[in-house]
Amino acid sequence: MAPRLDDPYGAFCTDSDAYLEGAGEGPLAGLTFAAKDIFDVAGHTTGGGNPDWKAAQSPAAKTNPYVQRLVDAGATMVGKTITDEITRGILGENAHYGTPVNPSAPGRVPGGSSSGSASAVAGGLVDFALGSDTGGSVRIPASFCGLYGMRTTHGRLALDGMLMQAESFDTVGWFARDAEMFARTAAVMLETDIPNTRPTRMIIAEDAFEVADKAVQDALQAPLEAVGDQIGSVTTTRLSDNGLDEWRAYQQPLQSREAWYTARDWVDRCNPRFGYDVARRLMESATITDETVAAAQAGREAVQARMADILQPGTVVCLPTAPFPAPEAGLPQSQMWDRRSSIITLTCIAGLLGAPQINLPLAEIDGMPVGLSLLAAPGEDDVLAGFAKTVDES
Amino acid sequence: MAPRLDDPYGAFCTDSDAYLEGAGEGPLAGLTFAAKDIFDVAGHTTGGGNPDWKAAQSPAAKTNPYVQRLVDAGATMVGKTITDEITRGILGENAHYGTPVNPSAPGRVPGGSSSGSASAVAGGLVDFALGSDTGGSVRIPASFCGLYGMRTTHGRLALDGMLMQAESFDTVGWFARDAEMFARTAAVMLETDIPNTRPTRMIIAEDAFEVADKAVQDALQAPLEAVGDQIGSVTTTRLSDNGLDEWRAYQQPLQSREAWYTARDWVDRCNPRFGYDVARRLMESATITDETVAAAQAGREAVQARMADILQPGTVVCLPTAPFPAPEAGLPQSQMWDRRSSIITLTCIAGLLGAPQINLPLAEIDGMPVGLSLLAAPGEDDVLAGFAKTVDES
Repeated sequence: MAPRLDDPYGAFCTDSDAYLEGAGEGPLAGLTFAAKDIFDVAGHTTGGGNPDWKAAQSPAAKTNPYVQRLVDAGATMVGKTITDEITRGILGENAHYGTPVNPSAPGRVPGGSSSGSASAVAGGLVDFALGSDTGGSVRIPASFCGLYGMRTTHGRLALDGMLMQAESFDTVGWFARDAEMFARTAAVMLETDIPNTRPTRMIIAEDAFEVADKAVQDALQAPLEAVGDQIGSVTTTRLSDNGLDEWRAYQQPLQSREAWYTARDWVDRCNPRFGYDVARRLMESATITDETVAAAQAGREAVQARMADILQPGTVVCLPTAPFPAPEAGLPQSQMWDRRSSIITLTCIAGLLGAPQINLPLAEIDGMPVGLSLLAAPGEDDVLAGFAKTVDES
Repeated sequence: MAPRLDDPYGAFCTDSDAYLEGAGEGPLAGLTFAAKDIFDVAGHTTGGGNPDWKAAQSPAAKTNPYVQRLVDAGATMVGKTITDEITRGILGENAHYGTPVNPSAPGRVPGGSSSGSASAVAGGLVDFALGSDTGGSVRIPASFCGLYGMRTTHGRLALDGMLMQAESFDTVGWFARDAEMFARTAAVMLETDIPNTRPTRMIIAEDAFEVADKAVQDALQAPLEAVGDQIGSVTTTRLSDNGLDEWRAYQQPLQSREAWYTARDWVDRCNPRFGYDVARRLMESATITDETVAAAQAGREAVQARMADILQPGTVVCLPTAPFPAPEAGLPQSQMWDRRSSIITLTCIAGLLGAPQINLPLAEIDGMPVGLSLLAAPGEDDVLAGFAKTVDES
């Protein structure tokens, strides 16, 4: 029987009582965690942030393998957390279930789509939480809520037992308040020892910094230097020839097309209710042409080739996680649309590559968190998790 | 205090207890009616078929003038009825409040957007009911449910105290089960004596009949002849040079643009939840260009000129109200989209003209109603209501 959750942040799903007691011992014994309501828990219906989606599902037959792995490692899953509808959102405003509070920046959005997981961790309700990241859904809430949060290498963690969005972009990730807890969770999630090795070369992505507000560039200057000092070799480069907007223009149609293919049969059959902004994005997804997709795919391959040159072994690329601190909650959609684009101009890089990226919550603007990101070559998830711990302790 | 409604058809809004006792005497004394939940009743919040729209409204300060006029004439308003969301729908399926039963064709949609009003009248729950018709929202439910139902001349009845959709198309209308009751209501609504005069010339719109399924053409043959016999002079013509699809292509962008202008500030501010099909149409509305609108406006004027030639005094144009009987309820959206277009190919004519059009429930296919429509020159509402009575009695 699940204990009653005290949730002043509106982070948890009130229509789920999924609860899994942790194994008596293990590396995470005594800890608590939450899971975004896209991860299956046997016997419970996964909600996906949309009541009509939930109504069309049966209770899960099996628990998601990472939820199970964390429970087997001793951690207790205390509940499911709110997500943007079918993970389509970067701000964390859900028209059905409300906007979880950003405990680190009250009155501001928590970021999404892993909104409730970030809110619960930032508010101290759990030790860590599971999220997913397709277009930025772990990294952005981590930046907005001041958390360590990682998008893993695409394909490193299997996508079984969870609600998918866009198959060539979806990844599993998680949040913690400090790098030590983050690394402990990483060791279980990645089933590996987390090394204490440092990257040997840091490349500052100048064009990515230019996407960020001046205040963010300024706030990240000191942590950038601190991280650079840890690594030693620091250079600056421009990732893109024609600006990162072009990269975003590769990512968006590819992700959108895949997301539409994931949702379309259900949408056609059930005519589900969506917040207008989500319906709008779905409908835009539905209108993407094969020609646009083909061009974007070619662009994606060019980006991958370019980044393979940059991401030599031991290299991390440093960039702002988000171009600004968390925007105010409840703004008109017309004021959010450009913000969403500029966020994706930064988050698209790892998505196009399938690369891991970690948010380091090392700066603030007027008390609001802003995060610095390290991006590594696909497969170097453990290096990022380990190095985050080194930076945190320094 | 409103008596508890017995509503086996899901026609009434369960979240409204609006009720207005009729005046003790008057031409409608002892009768009951229902009002589509777009008409204001003082002290009650008009819902408009969308919970987020309702949540953004205050209780109405004043009762809609036609609701008041009917109550003053002795009829008791027993409740508000379900409408398609913000009147955007022609089928009567509401993703929030459900689909009212079509009592005349169980398992089929009632038609919309005045879905609950048609359902309540067809089911015998009230004597008549108020609706509105922008693109077909009285005529189609009347045809699908087997009712007398009229779209009035645009501007004949003021549009105060009601939720607007598209200002150059919106009209008030009503439903009744028989032509006698329809005419009694008409006399009050139009504040006029309903004449027993007959039109002197009937023109069969050949191109409109071609839009209808063969089964509908066949089923309407006998009533067409009966109506023609009443009138005497019957001719056949093609209304359009290039087909009625072209006329629909004038109506849709004009209505859609106006509907978007009506809704857009609220949509931007509140990010309301919509069924996907409604959001899709709104979003399409938002993308219509000024050039398209200008071309459609020119087309509308050409249609008006053409129809002014045809609709000489005493003339009615005869056409199928809908191209088919009520479709099954709950079909996938992809199966509804073409049906919606072909419906509008017929309903657009009166909309472009601002002309009155009445549905005569004179035929059936496999027990399902199909209606014959008479369309007259703007201002001839009372002639249509009076002639319907003559046909019914014949």
